[in-house]
Amino acid sequence: MNDLRIEARPTPRPGPGELLVEVRSVGVCGSDVHYYQHGRIGRYVVEQPLVLGHEASGVVVAAGPGADASRVGERVAIEPGIPCGRCTRCRTGHYNLCPDVRFFATPPIDGAFARYVAINQDFAYPVPDTLDDDEAALIEPLSVGLWASWRAGIRGGERVLVTGAGPIGLVAVQVARALGAAEVIVTDLNRRRLGLAADLGATSVIDLTRESVPADLGADILLECSGAPQALVDGIRALAAAGTAVAVGMGPAADAVVPLQLIQNREIVLTGTFRYANTYPKAIALAAAGRIQLRSLVTGRYDLDHTEEALTAGSSDPSAVKAVVHPQQR
Amino acid sequence: MNDLRIEARPTPRPGPGELLVEVRSVGVCGSDVHYYQHGRIGRYVVEQPLVLGHEASGVVVAAGPGADASRVGERVAIEPGIPCGRCTRCRTGHYNLCPDVRFFATPPIDGAFARYVAINQDFAYPVPDTLDDDEAALIEPLSVGLWASWRAGIRGGERVLVTGAGPIGLVAVQVARALGAAEVIVTDLNRRRLGLAADLGATSVIDLTRESVPADLGADILLECSGAPQALVDGIRALAAAGTAVAVGMGPAADAVVPLQLIQNREIVLTGTFRYANTYPKAIALAAAGRIQLRSLVTGRYDLDHTEEALTAGSSDPSAVKAVVHPQQR
Amino acid sequence: MNDLRIEARPTPRPGPGELLVEVRSVGVCGSDVHYYQHGRIGRYVVEQPLVLGHEASGVVVAAGPGADASRVGERVAIEPGIPCGRCTRCRTGHYNLCPDVRFFATPPIDGAFARYVAINQDFAYPVPDTLDDDEAALIEPLSVGLWASWRAGIRGGERVLVTGAGPIGLVAVQVARALGAAEVIVTDLNRRRLGLAADLGATSVIDLTRESVPADLGADILLECSGAPQALVDGIRALAAAGTAVAVGMGPAADAVVPLQLIQNREIVLTGTFRYANTYPKAIALAAAGRIQLRSLVTGRYDLDHTEEALTAGSSDPSAVKAVVHPQQR
Amino acid sequence: MNDLRIEARPTPRPGPGELLVEVRSVGVCGSDVHYYQHGRIGRYVVEQPLVLGHEASGVVVAAGPGADASRVGERVAIEPGIPCGRCTRCRTGHYNLCPDVRFFATPPIDGAFARYVAINQDFAYPVPDTLDDDEAALIEPLSVGLWASWRAGIRGGERVLVTGAGPIGLVAVQVARALGAAEVIVTDLNRRRLGLAADLGATSVIDLTRESVPADLGADILLECSGAPQALVDGIRALAAAGTAVAVGMGPAADAVVPLQLIQNREIVLTGTFRYANTYPKAIALAAAGRIQLRSLVTGRYDLDHTEEALTAGSSDPSAVKAVVHPQQR
Repeated sequence: MNDLRIEARPTPRPGPGELLVEVRSVGVCGSDVHYYQHGRIGRYVVEQPLVLGHEASGVVVAAGPGADASRVGERVAIEPGIPCGRCTRCRTGHYNLCPDVRFFATPPIDGAFARYVAINQDFAYPVPDTLDDDEAALIEPLSVGLWASWRAGIRGGERVLVTGAGPIGLVAVQVARALGAAEVIVTDLNRRRLGLAADLGATSVIDLTRESVPADLGADILLECSGAPQALVDGIRALAAAGTAVAVGMGPAADAVVPLQLIQNREIVLTGTFRYANTYPKAIALAAAGRIQLRSLVTGRYDLDHTEEALTAGSSDPSAVKAVVHPQQR
Repeated sequence: MNDLRIEARPTPRPGPGELLVEVRSVGVCGSDVHYYQHGRIGRYVVEQPLVLGHEASGVVVAAGPGADASRVGERVAIEPGIPCGRCTRCRTGHYNLCPDVRFFATPPIDGAFARYVAINQDFAYPVPDTLDDDEAALIEPLSVGLWASWRAGIRGGERVLVTGAGPIGLVAVQVARALGAAEVIVTDLNRRRLGLAADLGATSVIDLTRESVPADLGADILLECSGAPQALVDGIRALAAAGTAVAVGMGPAADAVVPLQLIQNREIVLTGTFRYANTYPKAIALAAAGRIQLRSLVTGRYDLDHTEEALTAGSSDPSAVKAVVHPQQR
Repeated sequence: MNDLRIEARPTPRPGPGELLVEVRSVGVCGSDVHYYQHGRIGRYVVEQPLVLGHEASGVVVAAGPGADASRVGERVAIEPGIPCGRCTRCRTGHYNLCPDVRFFATPPIDGAFARYVAINQDFAYPVPDTLDDDEAALIEPLSVGLWASWRAGIRGGERVLVTGAGPIGLVAVQVARALGAAEVIVTDLNRRRLGLAADLGATSVIDLTRESVPADLGADILLECSGAPQALVDGIRALAAAGTAVAVGMGPAADAVVPLQLIQNREIVLTGTFRYANTYPKAIALAAAGRIQLRSLVTGRYDLDHTEEALTAGSSDPSAVKAVVHPQQR
Repeated sequence: MNDLRIEARPTPRPGPGELLVEVRSVGVCGSDVHYYQHGRIGRYVVEQPLVLGHEASGVVVAAGPGADASRVGERVAIEPGIPCGRCTRCRTGHYNLCPDVRFFATPPIDGAFARYVAINQDFAYPVPDTLDDDEAALIEPLSVGLWASWRAGIRGGERVLVTGAGPIGLVAVQVARALGAAEVIVTDLNRRRLGLAADLGATSVIDLTRESVPADLGADILLECSGAPQALVDGIRALAAAGTAVAVGMGPAADAVVPLQLIQNREIVLTGTFRYANTYPKAIALAAAGRIQLRSLVTGRYDLDHTEEALTAGSSDPSAVKAVVHPQQR
C-alpha cells in the first residue's frame, strides 16, 4: 500500500477487435485512491502490481486484427468495462451487472495510468473536438451521474436532493439539471464544494455543519453521493410520497439502516447503482452540446511522473475535486 | 384494549353520493387484531370506541342523494378507503397515498363489523354471483397481494420468493402465479400453512424451522409478507441481479437493516406497499375468472355475537388463516 | 361563424370549492380560432354563444363556500379542465381522459376571454412573481409540450425530431431541450418560425420548402406538432429502431396512413396526446427556473375589445406565433 | 418457388463456442411457407438453395472449440437468431433489432429442416424432460406470443382482444391468460380455430363471418395476430382509453390506415413486434410449469421426406394449426 511505481512496460498489442489508444488524460477516482491506500476494495484485492486509472481518453494509434483501421487518428473516450455480451445481464441491457465484465483498474485487470492501452473497439467512442482531452476522460464520471439520474427516473420538473458535493455529487447536480430537474438541493460539509455546486447549477445548498436536511423537504428524488449512512437515512426521510432514492456513493459497511416503515407508508423506491450501462454516447452528446460543464471539475493536472501527487491531492486538500493525469507528459 | 362490545347503533344514513350497504361478510385482518389487543398501530391511536373491520362485502339497500338508486339490490365488494380525489397523489394515480384518505377501522373512522355501512358509490364494486359473500369480502386482501405483485413488476416467467404464508402471503402466492410467475417459493415456520401454500400453487416451500433461504436462489422478485426483519434481509440476499424486493408485511420497528452494498452491486430495487390503488375491478375479474381461490383461505366463520372469537382465532391456532364475520347472523 | 361579440355578462359567483379569478392574460389557441371560424371541432359543436379562451392567468379576488379564502390576492395559472376525480381514468392518473371533464371553451363550457372566471381551487396554481401574467397564461401550452415529452419518454441525451414550428412545436423544442435532449431538429415551411426555433434551442432546422427529413436521421423521438399527415409518415421513417413517435398536432382527418411494417420491424411506439395531466406544478417550476422561455412566444398583445384581431392574427401573418388578450384592458 | 429438395449435405462442424445439435423436431412457420411459395419476404430474397425451418429442438451431440463439452447429451430448444452482442440494440436489451443478427431460414442463413445444425451455445437452452421434442421446438412461437404480451404490458386483470386464431393467435391467447388477463376475447373466420381457442383458455370468441368486434368492447390490450388491415383498425377502435395495441401479424402491405384521432383522443399506444428477445428461459419455465399447452397446437407430424406435405398442410386444411417435422425420421 502507498507503493506507487512508474515502470517501463511493453506497449500492449491490440488483440482481435481491439484498438490501441495513446492515452491523453486520465481522471483520478476515489476507487484509485482507495486501492492505492488500502490495497483492496471489498472482495477485490490487489495481489500483484496493478495499473490504476479507469477514466481515460486518448487517440487511436493502431487497430488489432478485425478492428476498424480507419479509426486510427480518432479521438476517443474509453468505456473501461468490457462485458461478455452473452449472459442474461448483457442480453437484457444490464451489462454493467455482467459477472464476467473485465473492468480497468479492478484486480487483476490493469487500468489506464499508462501511455498506451488496448481496448475493444466498441468501447472506444469518438468524441468531437469541442470536447478537450480532460473532458473526454471525464465522460466516465459523467456516466456515473447519468446512470444514477436515469435510474432515478428524472423526467422533468422535479425537486432533486443531491447529498454530497464530491466529484460524483457535482456531476449529479449538473445531470439532474440537464435532465430537467427544476430544483436541485445539495448538501455537503465543505463550503467550497457547496459553492462550486451552486456555480454548477444547484438551486440551493445545505451546509451540514450548520443545518440539517429538513424532513419536510418533499423531494421527488434523492441521489445519495456521499456514502454516509446518515445521509441516506435523512435523504429518504426528506422524500415526498412515491419518491425515489438512489444510493450512488459507496458506504463504509455492507449493511445499512433504512427507515423501512417510511419506505412502506410512502411507497418510496430505494435502489443503488453499479457503474453504468449505455451511457457513453448520450453522455458525450450532452457534454458536446454544452449541457454539462466537465472542465470546471478539474482542480489539478499532473504529468505521469506526478501521478502520486494526483492520487493524494484529495487527501491534502478537501476542496480538491478532480485530479487528472496526462500520461504523455513527464 | 381487549375490550369488545356489541352495541346497538342507529343505522347510518347514506350521504350525498353514498350507498347504504347491508354487510354480509367481513374478514378479520391482522390490523383489526392489533387494534383490539394494543389500542394503536403506530401513530393511529384508538381514543374512543372504534368499529373494526375493513374487508367487507354486502348488498346495496339504499342510495343517498345523488347516488345511483338503480344499484339497490346489487351485491358489492367494498373498497374501504375513500381518498380526496383532488390532491397530487390522487391525481397521479397514487390515491392510496392520499393524506386525507378516510379508511375504515382506522381511528377515528368506523369500520365494517356492523350490520350496515354507508360507502361512496364509486368504492362499492359490483360482484358477480360466481363469487360468494366471503369471497367478495376477501377482494380486500386480494387487492393487497395484487398491488404488491404490480409493484414488483411481475410480467411472466419469473421465480418469485414469498416470505411468510399468512393470509397475505397465501394471497401473494396465488397472485404471483396468476400473473405468470413460473416458480413460487414460499417460506414459513408453520408446516400447515406451508401445506396450504403448496395447495394454492406454490411450486416449492421452505420450512424455516429446518432450513434457510439459499443465498444463491436467484429469485427475480421477493414479496416479503411476514414483517420479520430477517426475512427481508435473507430475501434480498436471495435475489438475482436487477431483482425487486417489495416489503408488504409490517415489521415491528420503524427502521430496518438492509444489505445496502448488495442492493447497490446488484442494482436491486427495494420498495414497500401501502394498501393498494385501482385494484378492485381487476381483483374481482381475476377472482371471478377462477384464477384466485379465496374460499380456501377462510378457516373460520362467525356470527356478529362471536366477533371476539373471530378476532382471537389466529392467536389460539397459529395455522388459522382467515376468520370472517357474518354480521347479519347473531 | 366569424361572429364575435363583446358582451356584458354578470360576474360569475364562485361555487363550492371555487375561486373567483380576475383574468389578466389569455392566450389564443388554434382551437379557439377553429371554433371561431368553423363553429365546431369534430363532435364538439358551438350551438349557443360560447366564450372562447382556455390559456389563462389572473389574480384571485374571491373564494366560494369551502374554498381557501386566504388565497385572495394570489396570482394564479388556471388549468382549464376540471375532471370528475372519481372515474377509472381519474383514479389511475389519466384524468385528461376523464369522459366527464369540463373543459374551458369546449361547448357548452364557457372559456376565459372574460374579465372574471370561477375555477375549482385545486386547478388554480400559484405562480411566483418571476413569471409575468402572459407567461402564467402560457403554462397551458407549455403543459401540452411537457405532456408530449413525458409520453415520449425523454430521459436525457436523445436526438429529438420536432415537426412543425408553430406555438406547440416551439414549446416542444424548448421542453425537449429542458428535459435533456442533446439534439433537437425542427421542421417547418416558414423560415421565420424556423429562425425562432433555432433561437429557442433547436440544434438544427429543416426548411421543408427546400429539403425533406432524411430517412436515416436516426431520431430517438418524434414529436409531431404540425398535424400534417406526411409529417407523421416522414417522421416515423426518420426514427431509429425502438424509437417513439408522439402525435401531438391534430390532423385534418380521423384516419391516417402509417408505415406499419416499419413500426413492426423497428418496434417503434406510436401514440398521441390529448391535453395533459399533472403538468401544471412541474411546468410552473420549469418556467420559474428559467428553463423555458415563454415570453419569446408572444407576438401580439391585445385588449378585450380587440379580441377579434387576436383571433385572426395568425391567419394574416403566418409567422405570428402566439397572441394574448388582456381582458382587464379595453 | 414451390421447389423443395431433400439433399444430402455434410454434417456441419460446430465452430468456436458452438454446439452441434441433432435436430429432433422443427415446427413449420408461416414464413417458411411464404419463402417456399413466393421465394421472398419483403427485402429478403431466396437467391440460392435455402434450408427452411427455425422452430427447432434437438439433442447436443458435439461441442466446438471453447464450447461446453459437458452439454453433450443435453436436450435443447434452439433460439434461431444470433445477434452480434455488441451494437447499441444488443447492449440495450433489444437484441432482436440487431442489424447484424443471423437468423435461421432467412436468406442467406440456412435453417433447421436438417438432421444436424450448429448453434452458438448461448442460444441452445436446456429443456426439462417434462417437455417433449415438439414442445421444445414450439418454444419459438411461444416466444413470439410472450414477447407480444410483454410489449403489451399485461400485468394482471386485463381484458385482452386477440385478433386471429392461427398458431400465433392461439399462443397469444394462452400467454395472455398465463400472464394474468382476466378475459381473453378471440376473433377468427374459422370456426374450428375458434373452438380450439376456447379450449385453450379464451373466455369468449367472435366468429367474424357472423358478427364484428364491438367498438365499445373496452379492451385494455389488443394483440393483432392476423395481419389483416381491418383487424387492426377494428381492434384499435375496440380499445378503452389508454389501451395498447400490438401488431404481431405481418400484413400484406408496408403501410396501413389507422384511426389516428382515436389514438390521440384516447392516448392509445400502438406498437409492433419483431421476433423476441430474452424470452427463451421464461418461455421454457412457463411451458415446463404447465402454464402453456403447446402440444395441443400440433395438428400434423411429418418425417423429413414429407417436409413438403408439412409445408402445404395449412393451405389444404384451413383448420390445421401447426405442422412439425421430425428430421431423424425418414
